[in-house]
Parts: sequence; structure tokens; C-alpha cells
Amino acid sequence: MTRDGAVADHRMRKILNTPERVVDDYLTGLAAAHPGIIVHDHANRFIMRAGAPVAGKVGIVAGGGSGCEPLHTGFVGPGMIDAAVAGEVFTSPVPRQIVAATKAVHSGAGVLHVIKNFPGEVMNFGMAEEILDFDDDIDIASVLVDDDVATRGGAGNAGGRGLGATLLVERMAGAAAELGHCLAQVTEIAERVNARSRSFGIGLSSCTPPLRGRPIFDLPDGEIELGIGISGEPGRERSSMLGAGRLADLMLDAVLSDLRPSARARLLVLVNGMGGTPDSELYLLYGEVASRLQERGFQPALALVGSFVTSLDQAGAALTLLEIDDELNELWERPLHTPALRWKA
Amino acid sequence: MTRDGAVADHRMRKILNTPERVVDDYLTGLAAAHPGIIVHDHANRFIMRAGAPVAGKVGIVAGGGSGCEPLHTGFVGPGMIDAAVAGEVFTSPVPRQIVAATKAVHSGAGVLHVIKNFPGEVMNFGMAEEILDFDDDIDIASVLVDDDVATRGGAGNAGGRGLGATLLVERMAGAAAELGHCLAQVTEIAERVNARSRSFGIGLSSCTPPLRGRPIFDLPDGEIELGIGISGEPGRERSSMLGAGRLADLMLDAVLSDLRPSARARLLVLVNGMGGTPDSELYLLYGEVASRLQERGFQPALALVGSFVTSLDQAGAALTLLEIDDELNELWERPLHTPALRWKA
Repeated sequence: MTRDGAVADHRMRKILNTPERVVDDYLTGLAAAHPGIIVHDHANRFIMRAGAPVAGKVGIVAGGGSGCEPLHTGFVGPGMIDAAVAGEVFTSPVPRQIVAATKAVHSGAGVLHVIKNFPGEVMNFGMAEEILDFDDDIDIASVLVDDDVATRGGAGNAGGRGLGATLLVERMAGAAAELGHCLAQVTEIAERVNARSRSFGIGLSSCTPPLRGRPIFDLPDGEIELGIGISGEPGRERSSMLGAGRLADLMLDAVLSDLRPSARARLLVLVNGMGGTPDSELYLLYGEVASRLQERGFQPALALVGSFVTSLDQAGAALTLLEIDDELNELWERPLHTPALRWKA
Repeated sequence: MTRDGAVADHRMRKILNTPERVVDDYLTGLAAAHPGIIVHDHANRFIMRAGAPVAGKVGIVAGGGSGCEPLHTGFVGPGMIDAAVAGEVFTSPVPRQIVAATKAVHSGAGVLHVIKNFPGEVMNFGMAEEILDFDDDIDIASVLVDDDVATRGGAGNAGGRGLGATLLVERMAGAAAELGHCLAQVTEIAERVNARSRSFGIGLSSCTPPLRGRPIFDLPDGEIELGIGISGEPGRERSSMLGAGRLADLMLDAVLSDLRPSARARLLVLVNGMGGTPDSELYLLYGEVASRLQERGFQPALALVGSFVTSLDQAGAALTLLEIDDELNELWERPLHTPALRWKA
């Protein structure tokens, strides 16, 4: 197979107008499909909950590079976040956007920033917070999501990347804010969710950013990447392709050894697709994960299966486990109405 | 690119244990993830609504070849269908399974069979109905879904295939059954939805059945298939790759010329992914479709965007339009709780 052949093949198989317009065109389509629950701020490139700011409610703002949809823009709405700021593909949004979104959702009860632990995002949310601190009278708190066990720990390591736990933090904090909890309470819940979550991702292919037009890395036939991120990063190591049961064991070993759940812990199990893997394969993987969790003495109490925190068209999956308690279990089940997740609302 | 290279690449990039087990392993995982709403009949290979049969309610049974998930197994639950029978990949379930599922969901109010217009499915549901007619005292009605404009009409043509309208029929009939409508009323609604729906699909790649291990057809770089089905069929013709706006125009021309909606019709717009295309591309396409519908004088009143009626890992999308009326609009918004679609429930 020639490299040129593979490149042309990938680039041509995307639905887009021009690579330069993919982010704006996606946001336009998302807002058009969900007019009752979200609005699109074109100038500052963010999606906001319709009717925000909500009087008396803590606001929640998240954001990041595009290409990981539905994260974050698909999670805006009652029961989850108030605004999602979109950067270029795999590139953090800039401070100006974050400042505008924060001001837009602020109702007087303060705003929580949900920040994934990627250097650009940490820097730009930090700069936005400095600007807001100087200019305005908005109480701001932040939570840093760092659930990726492939990048946690180790000397000189800046900490784990934010992966699937981002969704869980946004959902649980969003439900708490909807119940009228104060900024300190909402922040405590967000931090608890992150502290009790771990993730590990496996890539079965690379992904192709529209402007680049070819896969980010080269993955030989029959090989897979272990410990991937959500910006097309290669994994920590490469393996030959494994069956679903062995993939499940490998993911569980990585996640459980770092999370160390208590005996008979109740777990929320997120089997998350990377964008190019169909749901049928994800459910098959969930079956392997759930039976093995029970064999290891844990209880898969809540399940979420689908492609929620993605990396463009990459094939693959990530496992996120969250050790829940009664409060988190109740928050999870509260009404929710966003483009990507909706129940009881 | 060598053909061998492409083959190995595709086969290795699926999450599965062995190709022979993909259907059973998927059903096991699906049932494990949704224990409150569905149960798995291993012996007869179907998914059934937990608690079925529901006293006094018309039962709804659908089924078809696997590989199109979440259709039908992901649509079982309150507000949609009572049982979904699974065949091998791209192969109709056998009459024995359909008979067993029909008996299992029958509460005395009769059962509606939702049949997609594919020869094997029509034959096997027909044989099941003959067996049920001979053996049992169950009132059975059926609806034949045939919304694919690429295969409708023309001399000697057996009629359109059942595509995205299948989801809409199952949802609307399911909501009507949940409201206590009788078999004749539920069937009338199912037929109305099918009669007022049309679909057209575009493939940006082929797909790879697990047992086959290589793509079904060969699609040169930069070419796409127009008028695809959901069993890996090539399209009616081939085109060079087009931008999203031109894809939207092409899909709208095909669907609207056959549907012929009334002036200022209210339309339910389903932009459906084929399994390997991420939601961000589908939303981008929805934006192009919605703006063009308005330019043509129609009202995109309800939107559904995601991968619901798929063809394994195929890249691509299909457009389905349904001209709604007040009753269908209300049925759509009723409570719904299935693995793949959930709201207000």
C-alpha cells in the first residue's frame, strides 16, 4: 500500500465543505438541530444553553479543541453544562472565547470551569480566569480533569489527560447545579467525580484531521495503540491486535490498578467509542468488561455505551470507570436534556 | 495499495472475539448494559422488552439481519418495539425466531410485525405468519417498510428497500401502542409513517462483514456510492466525492422528488450515519440539509441526527424525510426509553 493511496483515501471520505469551515459548519448544524435547548454564538464560537443565564444557578463552562464531539458542545443543556467553547480541531479555544462564555452564563451564583488536563487548555482557561478576575465580579472555580491512567504518575509527568471522566464531571456537576447547589458544592462534586474516575483508551486506527488530510500516525496492519488520548496522539505502546476479551482485560488492569476501588464497589462503566467504531462493537466490549468486573468482585451499577469523547474518525474505544456513591447515583439519574444525552427531561 | 493490504487492515480493526460470535456477544453486551428495560432470549436470539407482554397493549415485533445496529435491537423498550429478532450479519432471522418473539410479546391485543422490504425478511416473516395463523389465536398485522427511493419504482422492481423509515415506523407505532391504541389503529399509523417517508443513502466507503474479513465492494479513492442500502450493497451509481452542500442537494433532490411533500410541509429530518462516520460530520450535513429545506419552502420541524440504521463500519450517511401531521408530531414527543433512544421517560 502506498502512503499516497492511504492519504487520498482518508481525506476524501469525510462529509465537509472545506477543511477550514468544519468547526463553524458543525456548530451551525448542531444548533439548527436543537433549537429548543441550545443557541450558537458565532462571534465567540461557543454553544450556550437556551435561556442562559439561569437565575440563581451556578453556571458551568467547558471547552476544548474540536474533533472530540459530542464533547463538549453536545453536552450543553439542562442537567449538564451551560456553555461549551470550541477551538479549532485539536486546538484549545482562546481566552477571549472562554471569557465571553463565562460572562454569558453568569447569573450571580458563580461559574465552574471544567478543564481537561491538556497544556493549551490549562493555559488558556488560566488566562481567561486572570482576565475575569481583573475585570469582573464573578466567582469562578475550576476542576482539572485528569483521568487518563496512561499519562498519570511517573517522574516529571504533568499528570493524566482528561478523557471520559470529563463527561461524567460535566453530568454530575450539571445535575448538582440544576438542583440549586452552590458553587462550592458543585465544585466538590466535580472534584469527587474526577478523583474517583480513571480511563484507558485503545486505538485501532489513527485519525485524519481535515486540514492535515492524512492520518496523524502510521499504524501497520494488525497493530493497535494502547493508551491513546483524544487528539490523535499515538499510545504509550503498540500491541498486536487482540480479541475483545483480552482488550477488556487489558483496559480493566490499567484502570483498576490506578483507581483501586473499594471492595464490592459500585461502578459507573463508560465504554466510549473514538468516532469510527460502531455501537455494536462497543456493546460487545461492554459485555466483556461487565462480566469481568463481576468476576473481580465489583458491581457494574450504571452503564453508558456509545461514542461521546472522540477523536474524529478514529477506530477504537476507551474504558472509564467511576466509583459511585448514593449521591452520585442520584445525580446521574436526574433529568437531562442535551443534544447528545437525554433522559427523563 | 495492494488488495491484500487493504483486506488485512480492515479485518483487524474490529472489536470482536471471533467472527462467528459477534451477534451473540453483541446481544449479551446490550442486555447487560440495559437490564432494566430489555431481556435477552439466547435460545431464540431476540431482545425483548422487560416485563413483556404488557397487558392490553398491542405488541410490536421487528427484526432483520444483524450489522445495522442499533436497528432493531436498540429500539426495544417502552414507547417503541416489544421485541427485535436478530439474524446473522446481513441475513434475515428465521421463522422460528419470529414465531417465538411474537408469542412472547402477545398479551391478547394482537401483534404488529414491522418488516423491511428485503426478500429474505419478507419471506421469513411471511412464513412465521403462516405458522402463527395455523397454530395460534393471535391477531397479526404487518407493515412493509419501503422508503428507499433508490430502489422504488421502475419496471420489474420489487419496490424500495426499508431504510431509515423503519426507525420512524417503530417509534410512531410504538408510541401509539403505548397509548392503548388497538391493532388497527397502530397499523394505520405505521402505514401512514411509511407512506409519508422517503430515504436516500450515500456511501463514502464499503463495509467489512466479520466473517468475510474484507470490504464487500471496491471503492476507488475519491469516489462515492449513491443510493446504498444497509447490507453493504453498492449504490445505484458512482460519483466523484462531493462537498457537504452538494451531497445535501443530491439527497434532497432524490427524496423530495419521490415524496412530493405538500407546500410548506412540516418535515421530520433524520440524518443517519452508516456506522463509521462520526456525529460531527452528520450534524454538519444536517445544517446543509435544513437550510436548503427552508430555501425550498419546507419546515424542518423535528430533527434526529446520529447513527441509527447502519451498515457495520461503513462511512456515509442517509437522509430520511417524513411529512408529519399533528398526531405524528405528538406521538414523536411521547415518552421513550430504549437503549438507543431515550427521552421523557
